[in-house]
Amino acid sequence: MKAVIYTPSEPIVASWVERMRKLLPDWSINPLTEEDDPESVRYAVVWRPRTGDIARFPNLKAVVSIGAGIDHVLADAELPRKLPIIRTVGADLTQFMREYVALHVLRHHRNRPYQAAAQARAEWDAVEVPPAPQRRVGVMGLGNLGSFAAQTLAGLGFRTVGWARRPRDIEGVTCYSGSENFDAFLEGTEILVNLLPLTDETKNVLNAETFGKLPKGACIINAARGPHLVEEDLLAALDSGQIAQATLDVFNVEPLPPEHPFWKHPAITVTPHIASRIDAGTGSRIIAANLDTFEKTGTVEDLADAVRGY
Amino acid sequence: MKAVIYTPSEPIVASWVERMRKLLPDWSINPLTEEDDPESVRYAVVWRPRTGDIARFPNLKAVVSIGAGIDHVLADAELPRKLPIIRTVGADLTQFMREYVALHVLRHHRNRPYQAAAQARAEWDAVEVPPAPQRRVGVMGLGNLGSFAAQTLAGLGFRTVGWARRPRDIEGVTCYSGSENFDAFLEGTEILVNLLPLTDETKNVLNAETFGKLPKGACIINAARGPHLVEEDLLAALDSGQIAQATLDVFNVEPLPPEHPFWKHPAITVTPHIASRIDAGTGSRIIAANLDTFEKTGTVEDLADAVRGY
Repeated sequence: MKAVIYTPSEPIVASWVERMRKLLPDWSINPLTEEDDPESVRYAVVWRPRTGDIARFPNLKAVVSIGAGIDHVLADAELPRKLPIIRTVGADLTQFMREYVALHVLRHHRNRPYQAAAQARAEWDAVEVPPAPQRRVGVMGLGNLGSFAAQTLAGLGFRTVGWARRPRDIEGVTCYSGSENFDAFLEGTEILVNLLPLTDETKNVLNAETFGKLPKGACIINAARGPHLVEEDLLAALDSGQIAQATLDVFNVEPLPPEHPFWKHPAITVTPHIASRIDAGTGSRIIAANLDTFEKTGTVEDLADAVRGY
Repeated sequence: MKAVIYTPSEPIVASWVERMRKLLPDWSINPLTEEDDPESVRYAVVWRPRTGDIARFPNLKAVVSIGAGIDHVLADAELPRKLPIIRTVGADLTQFMREYVALHVLRHHRNRPYQAAAQARAEWDAVEVPPAPQRRVGVMGLGNLGSFAAQTLAGLGFRTVGWARRPRDIEGVTCYSGSENFDAFLEGTEILVNLLPLTDETKNVLNAETFGKLPKGACIINAARGPHLVEEDLLAALDSGQIAQATLDVFNVEPLPPEHPFWKHPAITVTPHIASRIDAGTGSRIIAANLDTFEKTGTVEDLADAVRGY
């Protein structure tokens, strides 16, 4: 069985090829860009493929996304539409994400930006905050990453609410679903965390209208995808005070260009897409197992829905 | 029954007196400094009393510390040594502390100081860190605050160890006890959290020798008392790189004087004694209940041991 691997970084591709060859010794595994017999390839394992990268292989059985999202695969306009897409979700990915969400929710909850500024002025200036059980935090998107993150926030004592397209049941989390309940979810949510998949429906969801439904002075955390956020709406909401602080891990253009206004904005924390990552070690084991299972059974648990978009 | 209240802030005393009078309507409750019939007073409720403040009342049945620690009461050289001391521990106090510990352990774990500096340079510079289950964090002091904080860290996925004078059993936490196991506790601990009570034994425990037993590049968090830390040893350990980062909430002199080197040190996070606090609302209810119980039964659950020091 033959698979090819692509990421935008050649050294990373080399390291994945090496690992996958060891994990699947009976398979033939090559860098996508070096494969000279496209008809023989059955699987493409990719992160951010370029347009046409996948269509070049006419006999694929499935595409594997090196990540929980599949938006970077669907972005390829020439992607054969009926091709199954396998997501990659592992313990590390959910663990890294819940750490990131807990850290940044706690930072905003305990007013770290203000306390850091007070330290810079050498000022002993304590700001009182309520305890977490009096703070309502909301997580949009309750898939693998979102539901684990919401549970973690509830475990820290926060009054935690969640929102997803379809009804969910998560212990300790008040779950809202559907567009008809979006306003009720936002009402009173002081810290809003976005972990939605990027689809046509969720694009631009972090916009002026959404911000206006949060209580004045709310904070937002975007750890999903850059296009979820309308950048100019955020800047305006920070100017007006409707949003007090934002932490952003993802951007329309990554790396965020050096001249972008987010870098120096006093109310924006920029992190370089580090909320979560798939470690090559554990990630390659998960993908090898998924390829083996898909080849033997024709399906896997983490099969994405290309029409739904996640 | 008569009680007096003292804190260094007159407006805070006034607010406590008002609350306590409502909670204990049959009692007579006055500011300590305004009481003109000392022989009639049976209880003194205090935060950081001045030398002689308590001895002035010859017929006290007990002193109440407005806080979990009693070191600020024992610091009074004229304190009658056999007087029972009642600690004040409530849900808010432990909740605030576990939030603070979780926040700052996560900050060090996820390298926030480095990422914040990268943002200031507008540099997209991601530093990879291991997931929490590969990070060993240690909590010294496993009383109410410490054991709850350690459980919270374990809940976040950290490999959590604890150390206390006497053996403890906390789910998810590997507990060490006694001075003979202190080195084993420190070995491999990458983030060290101090929540010990301040006693003659624990004073200066954060010193060069302790730092030297941690792995190179460890981080420390002191949320207990300033005198636990030998300030010059910390500065030397930061210079040598033995300690990479420190977060300090408590100091020998508070407020930390504006000229103190900690304020501007690039590897030190200063917070103005905000890790935890007793809210006047919940705190007054806990103290009123403790006074009522002590008056009726002669004891309470949160009785401190003045000889032991906590």
